[in-house]
Amino acid sequence: MTTIDVQKLISGDIRTISRAISRVENDPGHSDHLLTSIYPHVGSAYRLGVTGPPGSGKSTLVDQLILHFRSAKLTVGVISIDPTSPFTGGAVLGDRIRMAGHWDDRGVYIRSMASRGSLGGLAVNTQEAGDILDAAGMDVIVYETVGVGQAELDIAQAADTTLVVLVPESGDEVQALKSGLMEIADLFVLNKSDREGANKAYTELSSILELGTESTGWEPRIIRTSALQSEGITELYTAIESHKAFLAEHGDLRRKRQSRYKNRVEGVVRQRLTEMFWTSERSDRLHEALAGIDSMTQSPNALARELIADLSL
Amino acid sequence: MTTIDVQKLISGDIRTISRAISRVENDPGHSDHLLTSIYPHVGSAYRLGVTGPPGSGKSTLVDQLILHFRSAKLTVGVISIDPTSPFTGGAVLGDRIRMAGHWDDRGVYIRSMASRGSLGGLAVNTQEAGDILDAAGMDVIVYETVGVGQAELDIAQAADTTLVVLVPESGDEVQALKSGLMEIADLFVLNKSDREGANKAYTELSSILELGTESTGWEPRIIRTSALQSEGITELYTAIESHKAFLAEHGDLRRKRQSRYKNRVEGVVRQRLTEMFWTSERSDRLHEALAGIDSMTQSPNALARELIADLSL
Repeated sequence: MTTIDVQKLISGDIRTISRAISRVENDPGHSDHLLTSIYPHVGSAYRLGVTGPPGSGKSTLVDQLILHFRSAKLTVGVISIDPTSPFTGGAVLGDRIRMAGHWDDRGVYIRSMASRGSLGGLAVNTQEAGDILDAAGMDVIVYETVGVGQAELDIAQAADTTLVVLVPESGDEVQALKSGLMEIADLFVLNKSDREGANKAYTELSSILELGTESTGWEPRIIRTSALQSEGITELYTAIESHKAFLAEHGDLRRKRQSRYKNRVEGVVRQRLTEMFWTSERSDRLHEALAGIDSMTQSPNALARELIADLSL
Repeated sequence: MTTIDVQKLISGDIRTISRAISRVENDPGHSDHLLTSIYPHVGSAYRLGVTGPPGSGKSTLVDQLILHFRSAKLTVGVISIDPTSPFTGGAVLGDRIRMAGHWDDRGVYIRSMASRGSLGGLAVNTQEAGDILDAAGMDVIVYETVGVGQAELDIAQAADTTLVVLVPESGDEVQALKSGLMEIADLFVLNKSDREGANKAYTELSSILELGTESTGWEPRIIRTSALQSEGITELYTAIESHKAFLAEHGDLRRKRQSRYKNRVEGVVRQRLTEMFWTSERSDRLHEALAGIDSMTQSPNALARELIADLSL
């Protein structure tokens, strides 16, 4: 395994960034040293999460936001998270072509990452990649994911400001998920607002927001955009700035940082414990049990207990 | 903690079933004994997974399928999985009222469960609840969840037959998720097929299915339904029966059982290891670090390593 040059990483060398992200993505067991070396350089980037159902136009929206960040002389790193199939290991959205407009801008780095399984791998590895981009001097980190459910929660955990992108056709989704979305979204983006039904969707969403009286202080807003026509993007950009200012003023950035730190320690512990646990001896015992599945009388819980029995932590 | 009467559970006593599921849901650390006691009675139920985006009519569809199972004198247990908010601990979909038509049928048991966090808790606890219903004599277990991404994968892992429910408006979703859905779905249900755009959606989905030449033998089919009008349900029921017969014939039920067993042992090990690890001493160390977050120079990875350092597994 090659060593990653931390000085080159911190100077923003693109190839080193790419290799470092590949390291946390593919070889989490050997990335602790790297992440520890860069940690003193982590902490100044602003983290923006963008989530929403497939087809809501998140990528186009992020492209438009990048143009605004670049106008403000801010560098941007985008981590686009693809739900992975556990069957092939391939990324579900792997075949899409995106954000081609930024390919010659050295202030923009875009990277797809696969999320793996259900072990909280998304949150941990994504945030590690965010740290790498932060240490490399990116001013804004954008986490973009497709999600209804878990992915949204992970994004909200990792980001300072979370955008939930909806389209006029998302009415059913809004109804079904209203209590969940309320807690996750700092800003709702009603994209494709030039489409039929946009007014109705806006009214529905507004009335749900009015119900939400959980007063952490910030009140989520709805921004109407048509990303393909570059409409509403300036308003969205301003709203993101407002949320950022609000967080800084109320000490929420610190609380978010604590919560992320805690989550990551727990995540790394979980990953490493699991790796340490599954020695070839224990794996053999499991496979032996699987071979005898037809006459199996021992429950999975009993076998797990048996395997753990002599451990003391 | 009260003991759960295994004999009563096996005899199908509803209150005992409910208490047993609450046990695996709320107190996973103390459910191993229960799950081990019932294991000899587990294995005869057929497990059906139903997933799809919010608003696709899954609940109505499941209601209609229940009527068919009941006509065939089969008892049905439904586990409806709500994505949980990690912030309130409440279930996102908790406010919906559903499947009220079966409230006086003793051959139908319906239960909502919250999925927790990103530790693979959904898969483990859901499958444990499935075992409880299986041991209690339910012939069919239905796992129903809202999902794009992880939830769908968990369901596919837990079920013998997986239905992915879409609506004519899901075109974008189908495009975006095509490679993932292909691997998960045994049957596609195009629900609300009376709506505009249904023919177009059917054609799109069909052409994607034709691309899929991964030959595990079974070729996913598309069934058009209008669950509210009870249309297409008989066809769907017949298709489920065909898939079940196919699995039995090709030894796939055994492979699925092995894969579930393996997953569950790994999941239980992960849960228990984590519980054992976070002694009050280690938690204190973490909280001490969090209090000093502003001047923190130690990366989460370094702290995790420090905490793990003297362990040997």
